Amino acid sequence: MSDRRYGLWLVGACGGVGTTIALGLAALGKKLTDTTSLVTELPLFEGVSLVQPGQFVVGGHEIREAGFRQTASEMHERAGVFHESLLAACSDTLEAWEKNLRPGTLLACGETIAKLSDRPGINLAETPAAAIERIKADLLAFKKEHNLDDVVVLSVASTEPPFPTGPEHQSLALLEPLLSRANNPVLPASSLYAYAALDLGLPYVNFTPCLGATMPALEELAIKRGTVIAGKDGKTGETLMKTVLAPMFHHRNWRILSWVGHNIFGNRDGVVLDDPRNKAAKVGHKDAVVSSIVGYKPNTLVSIEYIPSMDDWKTAWNHIHFQGFLGTKMILQFIWQGCDSLLAAPLAIDLARMALLARSRKETGVLSHLSCFFKGPQGCTENDFFKQFIMLEEYVTTCRDC
Amino acid sequence: MSDRRYGLWLVGACGGVGTTIALGLAALGKKLTDTTSLVTELPLFEGVSLVQPGQFVVGGHEIREAGFRQTASEMHERAGVFHESLLAACSDTLEAWEKNLRPGTLLACGETIAKLSDRPGINLAETPAAAIERIKADLLAFKKEHNLDDVVVLSVASTEPPFPTGPEHQSLALLEPLLSRANNPVLPASSLYAYAALDLGLPYVNFTPCLGATMPALEELAIKRGTVIAGKDGKTGETLMKTVLAPMFHHRNWRILSWVGHNIFGNRDGVVLDDPRNKAAKVGHKDAVVSSIVGYKPNTLVSIEYIPSMDDWKTAWNHIHFQGFLGTKMILQFIWQGCDSLLAAPLAIDLARMALLARSRKETGVLSHLSCFFKGPQGCTENDFFKQFIMLEEYVTTCRDC
Amino acid sequence: MSDRRYGLWLVGACGGVGTTIALGLAALGKKLTDTTSLVTELPLFEGVSLVQPGQFVVGGHEIREAGFRQTASEMHERAGVFHESLLAACSDTLEAWEKNLRPGTLLACGETIAKLSDRPGINLAETPAAAIERIKADLLAFKKEHNLDDVVVLSVASTEPPFPTGPEHQSLALLEPLLSRANNPVLPASSLYAYAALDLGLPYVNFTPCLGATMPALEELAIKRGTVIAGKDGKTGETLMKTVLAPMFHHRNWRILSWVGHNIFGNRDGVVLDDPRNKAAKVGHKDAVVSSIVGYKPNTLVSIEYIPSMDDWKTAWNHIHFQGFLGTKMILQFIWQGCDSLLAAPLAIDLARMALLARSRKETGVLSHLSCFFKGPQGCTENDFFKQFIMLEEYVTTCRDC
Amino acid sequence: MSDRRYGLWLVGACGGVGTTIALGLAALGKKLTDTTSLVTELPLFEGVSLVQPGQFVVGGHEIREAGFRQTASEMHERAGVFHESLLAACSDTLEAWEKNLRPGTLLACGETIAKLSDRPGINLAETPAAAIERIKADLLAFKKEHNLDDVVVLSVASTEPPFPTGPEHQSLALLEPLLSRANNPVLPASSLYAYAALDLGLPYVNFTPCLGATMPALEELAIKRGTVIAGKDGKTGETLMKTVLAPMFHHRNWRILSWVGHNIFGNRDGVVLDDPRNKAAKVGHKDAVVSSIVGYKPNTLVSIEYIPSMDDWKTAWNHIHFQGFLGTKMILQFIWQGCDSLLAAPLAIDLARMALLARSRKETGVLSHLSCFFKGPQGCTENDFFKQFIMLEEYVTTCRDC
Repeated sequence: MSDRRYGLWLVGACGGVGTTIALGLAALGKKLTDTTSLVTELPLFEGVSLVQPGQFVVGGHEIREAGFRQTASEMHERAGVFHESLLAACSDTLEAWEKNLRPGTLLACGETIAKLSDRPGINLAETPAAAIERIKADLLAFKKEHNLDDVVVLSVASTEPPFPTGPEHQSLALLEPLLSRANNPVLPASSLYAYAALDLGLPYVNFTPCLGATMPALEELAIKRGTVIAGKDGKTGETLMKTVLAPMFHHRNWRILSWVGHNIFGNRDGVVLDDPRNKAAKVGHKDAVVSSIVGYKPNTLVSIEYIPSMDDWKTAWNHIHFQGFLGTKMILQFIWQGCDSLLAAPLAIDLARMALLARSRKETGVLSHLSCFFKGPQGCTENDFFKQFIMLEEYVTTCRDC
Repeated sequence: MSDRRYGLWLVGACGGVGTTIALGLAALGKKLTDTTSLVTELPLFEGVSLVQPGQFVVGGHEIREAGFRQTASEMHERAGVFHESLLAACSDTLEAWEKNLRPGTLLACGETIAKLSDRPGINLAETPAAAIERIKADLLAFKKEHNLDDVVVLSVASTEPPFPTGPEHQSLALLEPLLSRANNPVLPASSLYAYAALDLGLPYVNFTPCLGATMPALEELAIKRGTVIAGKDGKTGETLMKTVLAPMFHHRNWRILSWVGHNIFGNRDGVVLDDPRNKAAKVGHKDAVVSSIVGYKPNTLVSIEYIPSMDDWKTAWNHIHFQGFLGTKMILQFIWQGCDSLLAAPLAIDLARMALLARSRKETGVLSHLSCFFKGPQGCTENDFFKQFIMLEEYVTTCRDC
Repeated sequence: MSDRRYGLWLVGACGGVGTTIALGLAALGKKLTDTTSLVTELPLFEGVSLVQPGQFVVGGHEIREAGFRQTASEMHERAGVFHESLLAACSDTLEAWEKNLRPGTLLACGETIAKLSDRPGINLAETPAAAIERIKADLLAFKKEHNLDDVVVLSVASTEPPFPTGPEHQSLALLEPLLSRANNPVLPASSLYAYAALDLGLPYVNFTPCLGATMPALEELAIKRGTVIAGKDGKTGETLMKTVLAPMFHHRNWRILSWVGHNIFGNRDGVVLDDPRNKAAKVGHKDAVVSSIVGYKPNTLVSIEYIPSMDDWKTAWNHIHFQGFLGTKMILQFIWQGCDSLLAAPLAIDLARMALLARSRKETGVLSHLSCFFKGPQGCTENDFFKQFIMLEEYVTTCRDC
Repeated sequence: MSDRRYGLWLVGACGGVGTTIALGLAALGKKLTDTTSLVTELPLFEGVSLVQPGQFVVGGHEIREAGFRQTASEMHERAGVFHESLLAACSDTLEAWEKNLRPGTLLACGETIAKLSDRPGINLAETPAAAIERIKADLLAFKKEHNLDDVVVLSVASTEPPFPTGPEHQSLALLEPLLSRANNPVLPASSLYAYAALDLGLPYVNFTPCLGATMPALEELAIKRGTVIAGKDGKTGETLMKTVLAPMFHHRNWRILSWVGHNIFGNRDGVVLDDPRNKAAKVGHKDAVVSSIVGYKPNTLVSIEYIPSMDDWKTAWNHIHFQGFLGTKMILQFIWQGCDSLLAAPLAIDLARMALLARSRKETGVLSHLSCFFKGPQGCTENDFFKQFIMLEEYVTTCRDC
């Protein structure tokens, strides 16, 4: 398998997460870092044939001009991440991969994201159908140029405002005719990438809270074209903690009275989330998981605030007020100080490998066994992290080479 | 089943935990409180025939003079727990149960615990055999007087210093002859209660870090007499959190660099743990669980300090330093502010019910399916709370009435 | 002086703070509690003739039906404050003082506060002038009935929405004619009480962020009638901490990059602050103090959220990101868990005593030496707590009996 | 004044603090960093003639082989401090200053520090008198070689175990004859450096908790030789916070019930403090300040633990339990995440400048106006940070050029 090569196509390629994925794959490929934080490198995966980091070629769509090297260098300066020797050693690979970047689409991505765009060649006037065709052409050219066995399309773009879905998103038959409508686009940008990938029979992974492929019409397309979907919204920090701690409260039969979570961070994602419309999409998943696990609705509050000095260091304070025996109120607080892009990137790499694994097993449709990676798992209503992990374990057990 | 009555015999009856158990059972029996924090009241247990709170009669051994009412009142004054109306409404039951208190033994319980004793009738000079006989007589009298179907002996006494075990603790044949040795007692106080209970064929639950029945000789005795053992060291707060969070780090393949835990509290248990010998027994379990779950030994530190102003409010600060992708160090901190006795008592009641359930099913020996209740689960090496809980679920599933 | 009696007239009498003031004065008068947390009982005040707690008679305006005893009992039930024996021992005094309660005014107090009103006799249709006359009549009747030497009017009412001031608030000559205007009232409720008090020559203390006497016209009235004003917005918890810590950063020449403060609490004040209009008034002072002390504008964020389970326990998490030597970023976080009414009440009692002290010294106008008590000190631009305290010390030194 | 040059002689030169001082002075001299965190750059100091960073030449004693560049590079690698471009730009200056390093003395510095020594030329067998002579020769040679106007000797060495003082340390007449005693040295290493400096009439600053010049005999020597002393134990993080917060509790008349402080860190100082004898010296000052400010002795607890993963990031959790009005207990917690060497170095530079300022004013003896810089201020019993700062302000006011 080792002479085969696979494409990882990043939507929103040169954001913090995309850049860290590219740098991480380069570093792993050159054996310059260890495999800490890759779930797919747990002993659980021994005997499972996964694509190796060094087999990946990275490309992607981007609406800004910055490339991987510039973003990585800025992150090093501002957030203190990435050792300078690693940046130097991976510079050649990142430079090569930057040649695979193509201009993204701004169709229905929302004003705040659109404002970030400074990349020449961004076409604002296209119809959804035209944008999809352009994206498909980019993907096919990438696959051909690098002689790739398969290409995973993985979205790590900024959070779009919530996009309302209707009957037209329930079936391919209803959706397709509307793609040529020029005004009032039927799909947001995130879903155009998903459509293009799936229509080419390529696997699509949505690491963001955007709509992407979360609709029956696109699930239908995936099955029709024989490919897979995984999503959505990578579970990296505070929400991971919630889905780890809520089961504890549940199993101990403690009553959660209130769960307050305040998040501060300062990377580009923060600029986008400073727009209340975009923030609404993000906060939704973060807030729903606790109720879903404990089976009742405690008083919850979630805020995400943009504090530039924090850069990529997302800090969350959570205050959990709960009632124990004989009505006694007690408190658990936690403070999470994590580097957002560094938390997200390894999970995204895991998901790319898992999507390719599913492809090698001829699976189609939504990969519901990947729920432990997501805040809003597609194809799965379980949010308890440990129950989700058991699903993953059970799946992986069936994948071992015998 | 509802006209049957069961004894709950508390070793260290009038400490904070024992008193809360007594008050809690009284309140539950009178339907004055809800069942929050009782694991055995989770929907999981629907269809399982458990002894009801109102069927319990409480008694116990104690080395101090204070009774349930006095301790409960002191806890209300100092720690602000227990509503005064609840104390008033349960006063009659507590008064009745105080009549079932008998003087405990101080044999090999360590100097610091012995110093707490002010109860008349404490016999310091007895041999282990004599102490066991006296304890057995107390238990039989209690059972007879209240016409009890069964009596669970549950230890909630203060933490003894570690008691070294040797070959003589490996089999009943070697242990028994040494029980008459007057000097250099072969068992600490905690094990005398365990011996007495088991020898009478009564179930024994060890909620403390003391030696109790944690030795092959007493496990042998349990099987010989057809009864059960559960232990040891109830998992109430910080250690519960460790066994909830360590699996998260493990499943995400993050590397824990250091895990520092500082605990402060001010109840009587704190006085005892201020003696470094007693503290050593306590800290052991708290420290071992993380390594056991992640499979390597991070730099760990655990302290427990006696701060009188805290009373029963055990507060733990934990600082977890971990390494993520590309060598990036991140931090999780939590602060747990729980009321120790209120956390422990419902679990102890759960354990009494589970022991009686096992008895009704004719089980014998160590009840390893109860590992999720304990810091140092007897008969089980698993410390991952969620894996432990699955063991409980699987057991309970086999117990449903069909 | 000890046979003299003084009135303390509370605006918003039966809220958490008002009730705690009443209970506290009753308890102090009966010597049932110590003087912890009374600034005016510091050794600094030795030799200064202050009105003693036992000399106070309490009365006040209220828009709800609840009295002191009911509120105190509810706070005991919900927040665990006030020992039940203290409540019992002070019940007679509180009952007597409840007879001094009169219906308040709802004029321009904002919708959210108005909705809380359930007290019979609230007149909604009056003009400002009519309301002022009614308030004056209540104050005079109280003074006469109890034969009081002086009456301090102290506002501890809920936070009104910000009330815009204009030229008409700059002088008494412009303001007075507008008081009879029925629609579009020229003053909010808080200022009507202030006007009434000052016009009677009584001292007025504003413990709230409401407008009260914060305008040149009312300062003019105070001087004209020979009485005093102190305000505004008692500095109890998070803001106190800010004005204590910001000077440290300033004196160490560290650069504050961002200062984020999230507050959660669940008392009635929280219901009112859940209205964004009312919240705006509150957040203003909390946010301005840091910049005022350090002389530049760091990125600041302040939130106050209503979480009912917290009751009176205001919990604040503050995250201070600062830059030290060679551009190194460091972090200070604090968590404040204080009981709001218990923090406020002793300061309010201090202010009543200080206002009466100023009266005995024939002072008039704004008492700027009381700045250390306030988030937005009237008559003083200094927010550094320790510089404010020095002002108090210097003033007190001049008050000692020789 | 700008053509004059001054020496800064560091005892323990290449530890984290010493290295940061050297790097910081080099960077300041080259205008590569701003003056954030230098107290002597506050507006307060406008018009005061201070030695400028670029006027300093650095030298020092060291017992290890490592130089400034190696230590700085290690700190960059391990703790993420010092930008790599700054290290590169200052490398030439650091290299030049490394030539001024001389072997230190191990006399009575304690076993743990002695074990760190790997520097050739360390003479273990000398008498105190011989060591002092050697140190003096090193200082004179440094002064002569670089044609320095004055040399400040500043100790930033590791913490020695407490050294008991007796009658022989009370006067120079008693101390001097004992300096030739070979066995059982009359002074620890830290005091030998102090002696040498003072005997040459050079200013001596003790930034450590070591004995240094804290004894009447050496204060006498300073006055005799017409030079100055400042000390001891730089107030950088947790203790600074204590001396900032304790006055708040004091001024608000709240009663501190308990103050618990746990510190973790992982730099070389931590290795030394892992020896309980050395730790005892450090913990002493940290623990005493609160009582000294509030005038009573709350229950206090201070721990410092060595956690290698933390490197230079000293993290302190403090839990302050206090009693407010009507006996209500409340809690303030803070978490300080500071980089130890970066906190200390600017203060040390400030102290060097202040010592030289005092010299230019012909002052002699202990500089008690520098108390705000120290945990255990010499010549001053005040620990309230803000009162200490006022002393500094008053002094500086007298220093302005007119």
